[in-house]
Amino acid sequence: MEIGIVGASGAVGQEIIRLLEERNLPVKRICFFGSKRSQGITLSFRGEKIPIQTLSPRAFQGLDVVFFSAGSDVSKTYVNIARQEGALVIDNSSAFRQDPHTPLVIPEVNPEALEHHDGLICNPNCVVILLLTVLFPLHQVAKLKRIVLSTYQAASGAGWQAMQELQQETLAFLENRPHERKVIPYPYAFNLFLHNSPMASDQYVEEEVKIIAETRKILSEPKLGIAVTCVRVPVLRAHAESVNAEFHESISAQKAQEILLQAPGVTFLENSFAMPRDVAGQENVFCSRVREDLSQPNTLDLWIVGDQLLKGAALNAVQILETIKKTKKDPEPILSTL
Amino acid sequence: MEIGIVGASGAVGQEIIRLLEERNLPVKRICFFGSKRSQGITLSFRGEKIPIQTLSPRAFQGLDVVFFSAGSDVSKTYVNIARQEGALVIDNSSAFRQDPHTPLVIPEVNPEALEHHDGLICNPNCVVILLLTVLFPLHQVAKLKRIVLSTYQAASGAGWQAMQELQQETLAFLENRPHERKVIPYPYAFNLFLHNSPMASDQYVEEEVKIIAETRKILSEPKLGIAVTCVRVPVLRAHAESVNAEFHESISAQKAQEILLQAPGVTFLENSFAMPRDVAGQENVFCSRVREDLSQPNTLDLWIVGDQLLKGAALNAVQILETIKKTKKDPEPILSTL
Repeated sequence: MEIGIVGASGAVGQEIIRLLEERNLPVKRICFFGSKRSQGITLSFRGEKIPIQTLSPRAFQGLDVVFFSAGSDVSKTYVNIARQEGALVIDNSSAFRQDPHTPLVIPEVNPEALEHHDGLICNPNCVVILLLTVLFPLHQVAKLKRIVLSTYQAASGAGWQAMQELQQETLAFLENRPHERKVIPYPYAFNLFLHNSPMASDQYVEEEVKIIAETRKILSEPKLGIAVTCVRVPVLRAHAESVNAEFHESISAQKAQEILLQAPGVTFLENSFAMPRDVAGQENVFCSRVREDLSQPNTLDLWIVGDQLLKGAALNAVQILETIKKTKKDPEPILSTL
Repeated sequence: MEIGIVGASGAVGQEIIRLLEERNLPVKRICFFGSKRSQGITLSFRGEKIPIQTLSPRAFQGLDVVFFSAGSDVSKTYVNIARQEGALVIDNSSAFRQDPHTPLVIPEVNPEALEHHDGLICNPNCVVILLLTVLFPLHQVAKLKRIVLSTYQAASGAGWQAMQELQQETLAFLENRPHERKVIPYPYAFNLFLHNSPMASDQYVEEEVKIIAETRKILSEPKLGIAVTCVRVPVLRAHAESVNAEFHESISAQKAQEILLQAPGVTFLENSFAMPRDVAGQENVFCSRVREDLSQPNTLDLWIVGDQLLKGAALNAVQILETIKKTKKDPEPILSTL
């Protein structure tokens, strides 16, 4: 395969490169693309030094697959050009996620959505990927009715520079020095703020609206009830989620635990709880503290933690490609089913 | 009044002293008590230097009011001795909060509970004080049915040393130095952990059980549904709470906002949101982002932030005393009501 990565020097781009190096995909050629800011930067792939190219309409010629991870504006401008050049695009931005003809996929949840696409697959919002990797196996058994979700979102969701700024601002705070903020619009050292996406007149922020819409689309449950509050916390790269999930059918904490101990992509902690510092760098989504909610039947509380850059972004994107390749390469042997 | 403060050098004790200095209570004599660790320490009160005394059974003689803020074990040992000496005790620990004969009071919520007491008033859990200061005026209008609460709890809830340790550990992390933890049992720099109280076999932690029981007691709603997940976040002294509140009656976000703009002890932010760094040092509880939950009727989302050491502890304790004094000094003129 000849692969392109748009946003190669970003936090997610870097993880995509690392995952492609480590995993078994047959990469024949790899191209890195970035903004003018990244010009002159060289990244290595399996020992080879590869310069970051500036994006241009002709950049995608000959590429089989292009990962986009450079924000919605870049995706809106270049994704369709890459498709026209014949590449399969896996887009990490939110630009096309709500397009009804474009699959929005978590391989553990809705791989069947990959069967029909028109050269573009969307990688979901990080909060949604972590949430549904855990909730989907429970949904299959007891059918979700309503989710109440409060997030504890790490700096990495706002990019590499936000991770740097959190540390720089915190050091300045501890040393009683002034700090000039460049990326994050609010004081971040020892502070919380509502997710830094625009707030509408009904007080919802864009991130919350995305989470509701994407969860419904992935589960094909257009009326699923979801209440969500997004909060940015001073943590570097793993998101956490406090989830109260109501189901149509009865499901005990014990039963949920048994299911989650077997669930693909999930690490279930039986007698401890997941913490972002431990989960950073881990590929699985961690779940712990499954409790029966004493205030309502058929309802569980869960504590979910996952690396925002890995399963929340880069890993899921690479898994989408792996799932497509696997489906194509290993067709069911038709004769044996006759 | 002759006043004693047990735990005077602690984070809450220090704030009680400062509030008693600033406010209009007639303090004739003040005594500070502490553990042996505090021996030799002198604190100032309105310009006078006062040494911290070691606690002993005879320490409370002649005192009218004693604030206890030195943990449950100290309260269990000394509260009844102070009462026997004739003092009114205001206890910040959880030792007696569930005693059915002991009032558990937030002055904005249930001041009537102060009418009958036997020399002991309990100051509620900090999360509960902040929660109910905001929810009670809405409860009066629409009657609470069920609360789903996720907390973002600051270091101060674990005491002064925890606040220090968070900063020391964070500095060590940023300087890539090892750090030996003394107070907080989990990595705290850029991390989250489940509240550091013991976890039971049903995966609930003590703090969560307290929050459920105390909320029900204060509201006199023994069956109120409450789902709660407690999380410690790397913030210094203001707790935040993401609240999903279901009511029996219909209540719009607009109506809730109108009520909260008038509510005693509440600062409502109409077009922004409350952040712990801004709320630290503020006496009021801040509420913002009141949203109608689109997934369920009669349900609101709210974002509540309050200084854990002030309204969450010291201020509420001092307000309990002020409310008792005021009630005693200004009895209703009975004749005029005939």
